Amino acid sequence: MTEPTRNPEPNPIDPAVEAALASSRAARAEALLEFARIPSVSTQPEHASDMVAAAEWAAARLRGVGATEVEVIRTDLHPIVYGKIHEAPGAPTVVVYCHYDVQPVDPIDLWETAPFVPFLRDRRFVGRGVADDKGQLVMHLAALEAMRAAGRSPAVNLTFVFEGEEEFGSESLFHWIPQNRDRLAADVVVISDTGYFEGNVPAITVALRGIMYAQIDVELSPVDLHSGMYGGSVENPAIALARIVAALKGPDGRVRIPGFYDDVVPLTDADRAEMAALPFDEEAFRVATGVPALVGEAGWTILESRTARPTLDVNGIWGGFQGDGAKTIIPAHAHAKVSTRLVADQSPQKVFGALRDYVSQVAPPGVKVTTTYIHGGEGSLTPTDHPATQAAARAIRAVEGVDPVYIREGGSIPVTAAFDHVLGLPVVLVGFTQPNDNAHAPNEWFDERNFEAGTRVIVRLWDELAALPRGTEG
Amino acid sequence: MTEPTRNPEPNPIDPAVEAALASSRAARAEALLEFARIPSVSTQPEHASDMVAAAEWAAARLRGVGATEVEVIRTDLHPIVYGKIHEAPGAPTVVVYCHYDVQPVDPIDLWETAPFVPFLRDRRFVGRGVADDKGQLVMHLAALEAMRAAGRSPAVNLTFVFEGEEEFGSESLFHWIPQNRDRLAADVVVISDTGYFEGNVPAITVALRGIMYAQIDVELSPVDLHSGMYGGSVENPAIALARIVAALKGPDGRVRIPGFYDDVVPLTDADRAEMAALPFDEEAFRVATGVPALVGEAGWTILESRTARPTLDVNGIWGGFQGDGAKTIIPAHAHAKVSTRLVADQSPQKVFGALRDYVSQVAPPGVKVTTTYIHGGEGSLTPTDHPATQAAARAIRAVEGVDPVYIREGGSIPVTAAFDHVLGLPVVLVGFTQPNDNAHAPNEWFDERNFEAGTRVIVRLWDELAALPRGTEG
Repeated sequence: MTEPTRNPEPNPIDPAVEAALASSRAARAEALLEFARIPSVSTQPEHASDMVAAAEWAAARLRGVGATEVEVIRTDLHPIVYGKIHEAPGAPTVVVYCHYDVQPVDPIDLWETAPFVPFLRDRRFVGRGVADDKGQLVMHLAALEAMRAAGRSPAVNLTFVFEGEEEFGSESLFHWIPQNRDRLAADVVVISDTGYFEGNVPAITVALRGIMYAQIDVELSPVDLHSGMYGGSVENPAIALARIVAALKGPDGRVRIPGFYDDVVPLTDADRAEMAALPFDEEAFRVATGVPALVGEAGWTILESRTARPTLDVNGIWGGFQGDGAKTIIPAHAHAKVSTRLVADQSPQKVFGALRDYVSQVAPPGVKVTTTYIHGGEGSLTPTDHPATQAAARAIRAVEGVDPVYIREGGSIPVTAAFDHVLGLPVVLVGFTQPNDNAHAPNEWFDERNFEAGTRVIVRLWDELAALPRGTEG
Repeated sequence: MTEPTRNPEPNPIDPAVEAALASSRAARAEALLEFARIPSVSTQPEHASDMVAAAEWAAARLRGVGATEVEVIRTDLHPIVYGKIHEAPGAPTVVVYCHYDVQPVDPIDLWETAPFVPFLRDRRFVGRGVADDKGQLVMHLAALEAMRAAGRSPAVNLTFVFEGEEEFGSESLFHWIPQNRDRLAADVVVISDTGYFEGNVPAITVALRGIMYAQIDVELSPVDLHSGMYGGSVENPAIALARIVAALKGPDGRVRIPGFYDDVVPLTDADRAEMAALPFDEEAFRVATGVPALVGEAGWTILESRTARPTLDVNGIWGGFQGDGAKTIIPAHAHAKVSTRLVADQSPQKVFGALRDYVSQVAPPGVKVTTTYIHGGEGSLTPTDHPATQAAARAIRAVEGVDPVYIREGGSIPVTAAFDHVLGLPVVLVGFTQPNDNAHAPNEWFDERNFEAGTRVIVRLWDELAALPRGTEG
């Protein structure tokens, strides 16, 4: 297995655009820092006005590159930013998707610098959102700015959709997409919210996992009970919950919910060989993660287990006393957030039903147990030989000097399925972050070299996609 | 099974004392309300000065009834109140123990009235601490005040020890007792921190359970991990914790820690017959507790399971995301507070060792698991035919008109074992609260009729104990 090597710096692209890029490097970096200073944390109501500010910022930049019909569309929650650069009559139309919302900053005490005081140092951007996903959104804007400065138009028609709810399910966009089919008429969707492979190897993501997120509530009594007076005579809801949770997944990493694996798309020998050929260093991955040992699903490699196989996790568990010292109670209730990562063809709703039925079945007597659906999204799988995927591969090769690897990503971008299933459009996932960028953790960072390379790949991608066979363009 | 019936109001005792009691009823109630207005929550550092205020309040009342050597003894944490009324040369000496600290008020939103604005209405005192244990401490003071008003001295020598750390392990008192053997020289200890049986049946507690309280910590990684990126490749610490917890106790209520039951004092057929004869209504108990069903230890009745058998509970469990909605993380770590209630002859230290070893054994790979001792106390068992127990029974019979039942209490008063094992003194548990008094929950209450009866029982108890065979009096 040989690791692809690429040029230390991105190859130059179109000379005029390259000249524009060379003279605007500092401005491009400053644009990202300015954007990342807006604390657009979508899950925290106190940031509602920051969400609007971030949307307006992106809309203003779109107007600045000559986009038309630019609109900050109000929704029940956070705005959707829409705009078009349709200057290539007869050429394919591309929907470009990024998101401007960011993860919360907790645990704040583990940040080495203030999360919303981003900076560029030693060729690294550091701050909440610089990688996920503001850096990628800014690269799209920067690519257009450079093309404009060089007097060029994109060779394809571009329709921009930037949303503010990606970090918790994209609900507004899910409502908006089917109601706006005409505004989204296109041939292909380019989503920039993924990244390169381990070791910063240029990559195209061909599969995303879906998600089904639920909560299990175990209720014993109206109030906490004294553990001396009642201990031994009532079911303990935290122990009952532990029994339920322990029944969900075996120590072999296999999910024990009956039917869970029914619709899993099988991995072919070729798929497995392709994954085995990827430059994935398990021990380096373990060390970077800081865990004592990796634990995958029995019968599958670690890489397969975390990207191409479905799995189940507890995202949170709580009940009773959590302070220092001791409180002698039997908790009145106990709770767990439980989510599954799904692969293509698994239905979140069906998996939830199976979970709910199984929990009812394994729940002990003496407590009341309920299982509630929180959100879900389907996984996706794009063929590597799709013309749009191949166009992206050529753009990456041109800039990076190597062919990209094709990878499966363990995370979810739920809206991918909406573009795919609702609009019937092929989706290409082209992104430039590094896998260890702390996207959902403290000290998020983004490599400025990748930022520069990605900006050039995007410029080149519009040229490559111009030759795409036409689909449903309206 | 016939339930003992008692007089609607306590029988009168010594006429002079009764006359004094009759004229001081309102003052007695006001004393309790005044005491209960001091928010002496021992586990919360912000109440440190309230702890001192409560200790000083009790010391002042002791001085008021002519106690000598009254002292508010500073400790590393909360003061111990000491005082003596030794006016019966040659008579036995009795150590009287109560505590002036109270439980925290959480969950505050479930209180119908302010916890530290206590009141008396419809013959119920309501407020934090009115039952546990300020009401009982005030009864002791009120009994002495009435005797003084009637011109009487107690027929025994009384040594008072009131502490402020009962609600979390009595650590200061545990240090102080062995260092003050001479100040505690006595024939018997009377602890007033227990109550009547279900249905307000007069009772003497002959057994208390001990406790071993520990914490289990499961560590995965330095920070939370993205559940998409890592899900399937690392052990989930909340699931690992669930597996450990589920292994501690079976659905049959049996603790599965090897050796856990080794030193359990056996229940004889006579013990079991005595317990079966108690007027315990399981369904009424279930309804009052508000649980869907009672769950005891296989092979034992509910009453046996919650008072005469050891058990294990999770007092709290936590890890990861606990908010509304969803956060897609694998928690960095997860934790549980685990405690066992022990019966006489079980050693908390030995049980902790067995727990720690078992947890190590069942802990899955891929996480780091540690088990830490928090506190412990031994159980106790007093023979029903002990002369001091019988003296208490006669006092109760005189006031209540019925013989008390002998009961085992599921809770712990760890200092009982210190008086018993360290000083070698018999301990009689004489208390007057009702089992459903919400002692550790919102809306704590205490029946004023029991308060009146208990005050009279205490007056009579000193007479009954005067005839106690002398032990180690110094």
